[in-house]
Amino acid sequence: MAFQQKKTGNRSRWRRKNSRARKDNLRFIPLGGLGEIGKNMFALEYDRDIIVVDAGLMFPEDEMLGIDFVIPDTSYLEKNRDRVRAFVITHGHEDHIGALPFVLPKIDVPVYGTALTIGLIEHKLEEAVPSYRRDLREIHAGELIEIGVFKIKPFAVCHSIPDGVGLAIDTPLGVVLHTGDIKLDTTPVDGRLTDFSAISEASRKGVILMLSDSTNVEKEGFTPSESIIGKTLENLFRANRTKRIVLSAFASNLHRIQQIINTASKFNRKITFLGRSMVGNVEIASRLGYLQLDEKMVVPATDIDRLPPNKLVILTTGSQGEPFSGLVLMSRGQHRNISLGSSDVVAVFATPVPGNEKMVSNTINHLFKCGCEVIYEKDRDIHVSGHASREELKILINMVKPEYFVPVHGEYRHLVRHAQLAQEVGIPGKNIFLLEKGEVLSITSKMARVLPKVDSGGVLVDGMVLGELEGSAMRERRSLSEDGAMVVSLVIDGSGRLVSPPVFESRGFIHMEDAHTLREELADAVQRLVNEEKKRKGGIREDSLKMRLMGRMGEVLRKYGRSRPIIIILINWIEK
Amino acid sequence: MAFQQKKTGNRSRWRRKNSRARKDNLRFIPLGGLGEIGKNMFALEYDRDIIVVDAGLMFPEDEMLGIDFVIPDTSYLEKNRDRVRAFVITHGHEDHIGALPFVLPKIDVPVYGTALTIGLIEHKLEEAVPSYRRDLREIHAGELIEIGVFKIKPFAVCHSIPDGVGLAIDTPLGVVLHTGDIKLDTTPVDGRLTDFSAISEASRKGVILMLSDSTNVEKEGFTPSESIIGKTLENLFRANRTKRIVLSAFASNLHRIQQIINTASKFNRKITFLGRSMVGNVEIASRLGYLQLDEKMVVPATDIDRLPPNKLVILTTGSQGEPFSGLVLMSRGQHRNISLGSSDVVAVFATPVPGNEKMVSNTINHLFKCGCEVIYEKDRDIHVSGHASREELKILINMVKPEYFVPVHGEYRHLVRHAQLAQEVGIPGKNIFLLEKGEVLSITSKMARVLPKVDSGGVLVDGMVLGELEGSAMRERRSLSEDGAMVVSLVIDGSGRLVSPPVFESRGFIHMEDAHTLREELADAVQRLVNEEKKRKGGIREDSLKMRLMGRMGEVLRKYGRSRPIIIILINWIEK
Repeated sequence: MAFQQKKTGNRSRWRRKNSRARKDNLRFIPLGGLGEIGKNMFALEYDRDIIVVDAGLMFPEDEMLGIDFVIPDTSYLEKNRDRVRAFVITHGHEDHIGALPFVLPKIDVPVYGTALTIGLIEHKLEEAVPSYRRDLREIHAGELIEIGVFKIKPFAVCHSIPDGVGLAIDTPLGVVLHTGDIKLDTTPVDGRLTDFSAISEASRKGVILMLSDSTNVEKEGFTPSESIIGKTLENLFRANRTKRIVLSAFASNLHRIQQIINTASKFNRKITFLGRSMVGNVEIASRLGYLQLDEKMVVPATDIDRLPPNKLVILTTGSQGEPFSGLVLMSRGQHRNISLGSSDVVAVFATPVPGNEKMVSNTINHLFKCGCEVIYEKDRDIHVSGHASREELKILINMVKPEYFVPVHGEYRHLVRHAQLAQEVGIPGKNIFLLEKGEVLSITSKMARVLPKVDSGGVLVDGMVLGELEGSAMRERRSLSEDGAMVVSLVIDGSGRLVSPPVFESRGFIHMEDAHTLREELADAVQRLVNEEKKRKGGIREDSLKMRLMGRMGEVLRKYGRSRPIIIILINWIEK
Repeated sequence: MAFQQKKTGNRSRWRRKNSRARKDNLRFIPLGGLGEIGKNMFALEYDRDIIVVDAGLMFPEDEMLGIDFVIPDTSYLEKNRDRVRAFVITHGHEDHIGALPFVLPKIDVPVYGTALTIGLIEHKLEEAVPSYRRDLREIHAGELIEIGVFKIKPFAVCHSIPDGVGLAIDTPLGVVLHTGDIKLDTTPVDGRLTDFSAISEASRKGVILMLSDSTNVEKEGFTPSESIIGKTLENLFRANRTKRIVLSAFASNLHRIQQIINTASKFNRKITFLGRSMVGNVEIASRLGYLQLDEKMVVPATDIDRLPPNKLVILTTGSQGEPFSGLVLMSRGQHRNISLGSSDVVAVFATPVPGNEKMVSNTINHLFKCGCEVIYEKDRDIHVSGHASREELKILINMVKPEYFVPVHGEYRHLVRHAQLAQEVGIPGKNIFLLEKGEVLSITSKMARVLPKVDSGGVLVDGMVLGELEGSAMRERRSLSEDGAMVVSLVIDGSGRLVSPPVFESRGFIHMEDAHTLREELADAVQRLVNEEKKRKGGIREDSLKMRLMGRMGEVLRKYGRSRPIIIILINWIEK
């Protein structure tokens, strides 16, 4: 591979301790979204000005047990708080706005976004941090805004949520063109095309740096238009005239929701919206004019049984098999208002996000067990992506003709494949930078190079408590989950004598017939060890006693099975 | 849906307490593999004879924390031990043989299988239960064996492991035809075609019951031939003449391993096998003549560096991202003998098994970070399945023309789709049975019906310890993994007095700055509660004290965050 990658480049020679900005120096600092799908955030700085684009969250990896989500580490921004001018948000998906409730109270600057994006952010902040005095500013595609040294022109892009924008950011060194999450849908549901003219205009001015969406770089050809879902819906409604129709889709995909509303209306069916995020988004989007919905069509969940099955569509969350979502509750026969049977057809209008495959698959199995017909990802034209495929990505690079190119929004393999694709369409390898989050791309009028990392990584969010990634707590949870725990409590007096028999408790063990014998043997081992320790020179020391107890108990436990529970020892010292 | 499914049928009227077999009654009892992918096993019984087909394991669901695998519940077989005549094994995959080490010592009967299958079983038993006196009997495709009332003709089928068979089982009521794991590969690597003639012969005799592989019923068309991998390999070797080539594949896919050996030989490269299962399978298959391998081609792992990169192929396990597999260790730079870099090309010749997507994806990302080129599932012709797709399944039903049809080897959604497909090609819905494991299909010369379930379900295996599925241990592991544990130990004397300050230990908490304050507050709460309890009528009772302590400690913990650790309380009673 010929492009700029850590292992092959020679930039380790380039080291600067002092990371303060200087004139004629544009710096691009990704704080998330590179090397991962999620928690998108980058800073762009020139002289005394920093703008931050997006502030997203990421859903946790399997091994982050019990964690709700992860947000970017913003300590770099906090250290340079006085220079941060604003957040500019490209669109309203969680991986672009989800960190705002945690970040804004610490970096209190205005947030810019289009009307729908601001509407969704407002709702989120109101729920999570109602006391925070937010400063949300509406922008419009095609209309210039100035923030510090930066002249930013947001431009319309098609994506799986309405009102998304890319950014053409004019800087003293040239334009930084960020595609945002983009696809080149030629027949978008809302008629709002990706703004080729704005991209060309930026290209004519001269694009110094292009940042481009890598999500679908592994997909050949073009991503189909969202409009094909409309045809699938028509066929579905026509083939199931006598049945009740239950649909599931992403609550943020308002284009798809609009098509479902349109089809329901055409076939004279009423519609019930289920799920907090579905109801919330439909409400916000209708109010702001992003959804055309006749209020008379809407039936509350409690009234479902008043309508004959063939007069109703139920639109619910749960397309990812999320526990407690509408679809999952229905599939298990646990929904308060709806019970599914042979007079229902259920269609899941989404494919599983990587990592959710098993949950989705289990939900589909349960739906079949209810006796209803199920349409799902293995069927045709049930989902299209919101991201550009390879041919679209090539067209974008052709149009922009950037000096430097950085693939963003992807795992490492996506970034590599996108770098390779950029080379295929003529960007020289030396001008392509494969960055990881935290790395700093420094651009002057003469050259671009990568500087050492700033603090990056992730911050775990467990409820509203923030913690460290890679901490020992995670390792402990993993051990506990795999092998369970054996706890023992001892009472030892001043002379080093065991005052009462050790007390044991265990959790997460496979039930064993010989549990009683095991405890007796453990008690025996503990008693003997304490006696040995007592005789040692200097008497009993808590640390060494615990260490040796663990070893001895471990030996006993291994005799009873191969699993190795965490051993927790509590010693109560009493005077006597 | 018109076929026989629990919710729509009326068989709840049919109830027999007495489950003893009787004359003129053939019973098919799936004990695993229906409603799940894995742990395939079914019993076939007539009069006093029971044969068991396959005895597989299943890899655990995500929520079965720390469990190695799951095997079928065989209590039905154990209860009827005196009537069980044999295990007949269709092929050597883990989901068909993996339970034998656990089951055979309890149900000690002969095991029948073809030469390779027996070779793999022998190896497995030798490792797991060396003291067990095994009775393994080799059978040959096309040659009849008689076991009790059953006359069994195994017939050749193509699959992703050599020497697989389907079974035509002659019974007094007609032939039971079991496809086994099957595909209709028209150009199999070993030239051993699926035996259409044997299937037709069974059809002519009259097939009373057909059991057919449902794995790929969601795939349109035909499954491509294994031979296409050979072309991909040729192109790969040709395009990378100067590089070292590292390949990963399933250790059991000996057809693929043969093609890799052939291509390596053609391009004058030596080969190194890595991974315990890879080395083991290559050894067994070579010895039994299922793999043509010139010993002079083989280079041990320790000699890798003596060869120039372009003279070597490394074939390793790890295509599923398994921790500690060769590929995963290499991708993390932790392999003893191999370090990857820009002079390597790595190709993963397999797609992720459902549930493994994230592990595979992480491995690919790490491989790219090593700087090597990576070829993987998103690339063309890198994997073909070993199971028949829809058009093949239709051909099979057309050929067999069974009286009754039962889809096997699939999750519930696969079984439903396969039942629908059988209807499409003319099997009447009333003759198609959608069974779940444990259900009994009873067939007489006049009719077939489903009887109530026998014991089924799964047995968890954690090391060599067997346990119960759905037990409280699993729930405890889940809680431990999500919220961690807070343990407290108290010493209380005969008068109900707390003799020493409570001792706390915690595991799996997010690190908190205020941990010290938390413990003080907890100690305070415990002290106060014990004092209250002491004053109660009748004094302190351990049960109620523990209950109330949990409540009180829970309140304190909730103030410090939303997570709810498991609380474990140990009370040491001492006399004073």
